[in-house]
Amino acid sequence: MNDHADAALQINRRFTLQRRPNGLPVAEDFALLTAPLPSLQPGQLLVRNVCASLDPAIRGWLDDLPSYLPPVALGDAVRATTVGRVLASRNPEFAVGQWVLGLNAIEDVSLVSPGGFTMAIDADAVPSVTNYLSVLGAVGLTAYFGLLEVGKPSAGDTVLVSGAAGAVGSLVGQIAKIKGCRTIGIAGGADKCRRLLRDYGYDVAVDYRGKSVDELAAAIAAAAPDGVDVVFENVGGVVLDATLRNLKRGARIALCGLISEYNSTSGRIGARNIWELIVKSATISGFLISDFLPRFGEGALEMASWLAQGKLRADEHIDDGIENALPAFLRLFEGSNQGKMMLRIAQ
Amino acid sequence: MNDHADAALQINRRFTLQRRPNGLPVAEDFALLTAPLPSLQPGQLLVRNVCASLDPAIRGWLDDLPSYLPPVALGDAVRATTVGRVLASRNPEFAVGQWVLGLNAIEDVSLVSPGGFTMAIDADAVPSVTNYLSVLGAVGLTAYFGLLEVGKPSAGDTVLVSGAAGAVGSLVGQIAKIKGCRTIGIAGGADKCRRLLRDYGYDVAVDYRGKSVDELAAAIAAAAPDGVDVVFENVGGVVLDATLRNLKRGARIALCGLISEYNSTSGRIGARNIWELIVKSATISGFLISDFLPRFGEGALEMASWLAQGKLRADEHIDDGIENALPAFLRLFEGSNQGKMMLRIAQ
Repeated sequence: MNDHADAALQINRRFTLQRRPNGLPVAEDFALLTAPLPSLQPGQLLVRNVCASLDPAIRGWLDDLPSYLPPVALGDAVRATTVGRVLASRNPEFAVGQWVLGLNAIEDVSLVSPGGFTMAIDADAVPSVTNYLSVLGAVGLTAYFGLLEVGKPSAGDTVLVSGAAGAVGSLVGQIAKIKGCRTIGIAGGADKCRRLLRDYGYDVAVDYRGKSVDELAAAIAAAAPDGVDVVFENVGGVVLDATLRNLKRGARIALCGLISEYNSTSGRIGARNIWELIVKSATISGFLISDFLPRFGEGALEMASWLAQGKLRADEHIDDGIENALPAFLRLFEGSNQGKMMLRIAQ
Repeated sequence: MNDHADAALQINRRFTLQRRPNGLPVAEDFALLTAPLPSLQPGQLLVRNVCASLDPAIRGWLDDLPSYLPPVALGDAVRATTVGRVLASRNPEFAVGQWVLGLNAIEDVSLVSPGGFTMAIDADAVPSVTNYLSVLGAVGLTAYFGLLEVGKPSAGDTVLVSGAAGAVGSLVGQIAKIKGCRTIGIAGGADKCRRLLRDYGYDVAVDYRGKSVDELAAAIAAAAPDGVDVVFENVGGVVLDATLRNLKRGARIALCGLISEYNSTSGRIGARNIWELIVKSATISGFLISDFLPRFGEGALEMASWLAQGKLRADEHIDDGIENALPAFLRLFEGSNQGKMMLRIAQ
């Protein structure tokens, strides 16, 4: 009996971790290996990955440090959220050919066991099935719940977003505008700053490139003379330190990510100006999108409705081919992607 | 007409700021000067300061940096909360001889104008009028509201307190015990750690002296293997970084002070491990006791009731004489005070 719908696919290409990166990942840290397709135990399925989401969080999973998920084991394929189709199934809940979203890996085919995070998705309900990795997936829900439930903006508030041209940040700015807020976006370089204003509706764009903490703090102060009510923080480092000097009393900082320190070779960077939290009775709240798992449906529904009404622009930057996994991933740290970064593994 | 009840007192000794300290304050930064008593305009009063509260916050007021109060002006007496008696009054709400609590200065006599923070207190209602500067004053209310309203502990929670032998920290630990929490105190040196266990009811005492971040994090982990639910942070620096590595999911950090950086000559120290806030969906909330001004009465009433029931031990360390203002103040940074630090200016 042949379990496989795609009989031609017998070899699984896998983008594996061979060495833990020191700072920015390099080619020698990985190897593209091949393996036979795994055979299925009852309850399991094989997923033909079509597109993998490349997220800054993946960098953290490559380190051997305690975190919210175990590190990627040496020799294993690098973990990533993917959309794909069921290639073979010994699980009655998933039929061959069904589109699924799941936490898999950068490989042609992933073996999925029961109890993991895998859900059926409706490819016909969206402009592109990749939207489940961007605006309707973890990225979109991170923007939605992080801004609305952690940052808790009110209409009229000034909302500051760092990494504002990124996959999450570009959505945060648009949601804040939908909610009647004034938005200030911080991004690196003139091109991105133009996109903030043109594509994502930011009221003000601030370029952090080449600025010291003092200079960036002054630029934020010029954009928000009375301070900011809500911060959606993706970056950390200089950007966070400058932001901390521009808080309004009672400001809320939703701490989503710290991309400036993920490749640090000198340890954690953190924030120097937390004294400002005392002076302004302000709060930094970290969060993980998994905190809101029971409410994913509610969030995805409202995001889908805004998308359908043309209120959200969800840019996707899709590089082709598993052999390009590393350069595609590194775009996140170079800042050379324009939209949610993904890797197409199969057509 | 002689406005003064104490006719003998015609010269006002004032502990004045002459130069902004660089790091730890030194004698040359101050001068004890004398001045004639000010004359009164309508609505004003003179307060004969009896005891001044010496708080770490005073160090911040000596710097020329934006903060929640204006800096002490060069040449002015150093700002401090005091208890004292009305010496002369052109304000119908305050009679000569009335005990008052107010934000005044380290000087024999302060001129109080309407609209400031000055309130009548009942010296007969408490074991010592100095209690209004400790357990029933800003210190006690900082512990009370900071723990209960910012930290929000539930019975059974593990509460970690830094600066645990200090004026605020010793009360925080006791309030947490009253509320049914397990308490871990961090302090510097074996003597203080003994006092944590013996005098303030802490379940575990951790000595931070001589420990690296890794070593202190390990010591906290040994005391709280499942992590801590609530942190009351007075110290910052190494202590906060080690604490951040021991948070339970959803932990709340009430950020009250950062005494480790108040005398820093290399700028703000801050926290490196804020990444842990993301991993644990945890929160740092700064606060000022003034946030709770409308609820001071409620807090003072409950603290007074616990004090009367013998549930709170409120140690006070009172040095004598305005000429000892600087060494008394420096005890806060040496850690040589045992209890709420005060300076007696008059009997």
